[in-house]
Amino acid sequence: MKIAVDAMGGDNAPQTVVAGVEHARDEFEDTEFLLYGVEKEIRKYLKNETRITIIHTDEMIMMNDEPVKAIRRKKNASMVLAARAVKEHKADAIFSCGNTGALLAAGLLIVGRIKGISRPGLLSTLPMIGTEEGAFNLLDSGANAENKAEHLHQYAILGKYYAQNVRHIENPRIGLLNNGTEPHKGSKVTQEAYQLLAEDPNLNFVGNIEASNILNDAADVVVADGFTGNAVLKAIEGTASAIMHLVKKAILDSGLKGKIGGLLLKSSLKGLKEKMNQSQYGGAVLLGVKAPVVKAHGSSDGQTVYYTLKQIHTMIEGEMIPDFVNYFSQEHAASKTKEQSI
Amino acid sequence: MKIAVDAMGGDNAPQTVVAGVEHARDEFEDTEFLLYGVEKEIRKYLKNETRITIIHTDEMIMMNDEPVKAIRRKKNASMVLAARAVKEHKADAIFSCGNTGALLAAGLLIVGRIKGISRPGLLSTLPMIGTEEGAFNLLDSGANAENKAEHLHQYAILGKYYAQNVRHIENPRIGLLNNGTEPHKGSKVTQEAYQLLAEDPNLNFVGNIEASNILNDAADVVVADGFTGNAVLKAIEGTASAIMHLVKKAILDSGLKGKIGGLLLKSSLKGLKEKMNQSQYGGAVLLGVKAPVVKAHGSSDGQTVYYTLKQIHTMIEGEMIPDFVNYFSQEHAASKTKEQSI
Repeated sequence: MKIAVDAMGGDNAPQTVVAGVEHARDEFEDTEFLLYGVEKEIRKYLKNETRITIIHTDEMIMMNDEPVKAIRRKKNASMVLAARAVKEHKADAIFSCGNTGALLAAGLLIVGRIKGISRPGLLSTLPMIGTEEGAFNLLDSGANAENKAEHLHQYAILGKYYAQNVRHIENPRIGLLNNGTEPHKGSKVTQEAYQLLAEDPNLNFVGNIEASNILNDAADVVVADGFTGNAVLKAIEGTASAIMHLVKKAILDSGLKGKIGGLLLKSSLKGLKEKMNQSQYGGAVLLGVKAPVVKAHGSSDGQTVYYTLKQIHTMIEGEMIPDFVNYFSQEHAASKTKEQSI
Repeated sequence: MKIAVDAMGGDNAPQTVVAGVEHARDEFEDTEFLLYGVEKEIRKYLKNETRITIIHTDEMIMMNDEPVKAIRRKKNASMVLAARAVKEHKADAIFSCGNTGALLAAGLLIVGRIKGISRPGLLSTLPMIGTEEGAFNLLDSGANAENKAEHLHQYAILGKYYAQNVRHIENPRIGLLNNGTEPHKGSKVTQEAYQLLAEDPNLNFVGNIEASNILNDAADVVVADGFTGNAVLKAIEGTASAIMHLVKKAILDSGLKGKIGGLLLKSSLKGLKEKMNQSQYGGAVLLGVKAPVVKAHGSSDGQTVYYTLKQIHTMIEGEMIPDFVNYFSQEHAASKTKEQSI
């Protein structure tokens, strides 16, 4: 398999990207990497070229570029070239730590939607910090600012296949993010989505889930409209970071006694930090397009880049995309037949 | 002033309610309390009847009652009688720890909307745990499942007066909860709301605020549609509680060394817990109705009930409601004149 890598995206690119790619290359012997970016810069950090091809380009998309314009105008940007390689079947997936909006636009406009899918959604993986272990997927976590109930139904199916093929959960529990647990709760969109999910015999639908309970093993896949999903994701991240900062500060400000206490607790608190570290679950994946389009955080280190490439490897190996294509082409055909017979 | 109290709402009612009322009664010599509920039960805990009147009723609204039905059918429920006392000007505000949906319905259907306000919103106060100190208000935090841009504009005005009259912030910064900071970001509703807020010369509008930054002193009042506001509020509460649980567990599971560390840190961690404790800010307030309708958490202790009654006292003393009425009646008249002149 081949993974197209935007080597220039991210705060510490291309250094951290190259480090992560080399780590993944050493682990996955069946995988080649196409690195798009400034050759001289990439070579500064590259130790070994085995199964790594550099495709030189000077152009790149900046973090403050307007996404759609950037994709259309910067035709030779590292991200655009990487996406085009996927479109032209020269690579099986694209990875970037760069501008999220631009990568979503590249996914939609260059890689392209799978037939039958209206609105691809962004899937994030979060640790279930309310429980002993485990994680859950949230989608759409921000690809769309507005969604209809039928989109949420498609997210449930996309999330189900992701959880099965990548996380190896046999029968993933699907929940609907809502402002109450009762079936009649919520907006028009969530009320309609509840019906669609409840009536679909292929889904293990466990009902509405409130944001207060999302970290407590309530479901394996939580479906939301992109606006709310994004807000909840950011609220969780912001709160976790604020509290960890407070804990640290409480230790530092508490005099000698507290500092000794902090030292004695160092390893436990480190374990806690690791538990909350999302990087082991890889990046955010745009689901519903013809290949994995995967975004890691701009501040990703080499380890996070490696984990995300590993996640992409699992997606390709698990044949997630062919599963999507099959399902939605059948759905598409079935709904066409249905329309014709009416 | 007089406060109507639903003595039967909450997990430990009427005990905790009575304790909080007596504490508030001892502090605020200008205030009388009307307690609605089972007289025998209330008397069990009441130490001193000064400025406290008990109005006996056997009926009450349960936590799982369907809100609107309960308000309409249980005409003698403690909550309904307390709301009716406000409607009939026998009291200036209503307090309850009971069924939130029912209290919102009582506010809308019995106390009634202020003229010119389309959709009253629920205001919550949260600590800015990302900073040294301070708090912010979030509204609508869940009274509505759907909102239009003009409702969000009204929430900004309601929130502004609340922050001025109750929190004594001279020129409160108003932010709009959105999925990006740039003005063009978001859904149709948030894009339109951005324009309305930016164009209002009476508002100190500071722009879009992402949920990741909401705890970091980004604004004094954050305006949101009720669906997203509710989801973000619950995500913050759920994450905070999950992490504090993890910190506790990390200490307990870390052997003797960690336990000693935990003991040494006990007072610092207690300070942290207090910082995150929302009860000192009082309860959630339905704004846009003709009197303060205030909800404290079902699990509130006497101290929280006291803080919430203190908050109500400040609202009445600060003449928040007359300010609302003035503003919106002028707005209403102005928009009528404008309509006629077109």
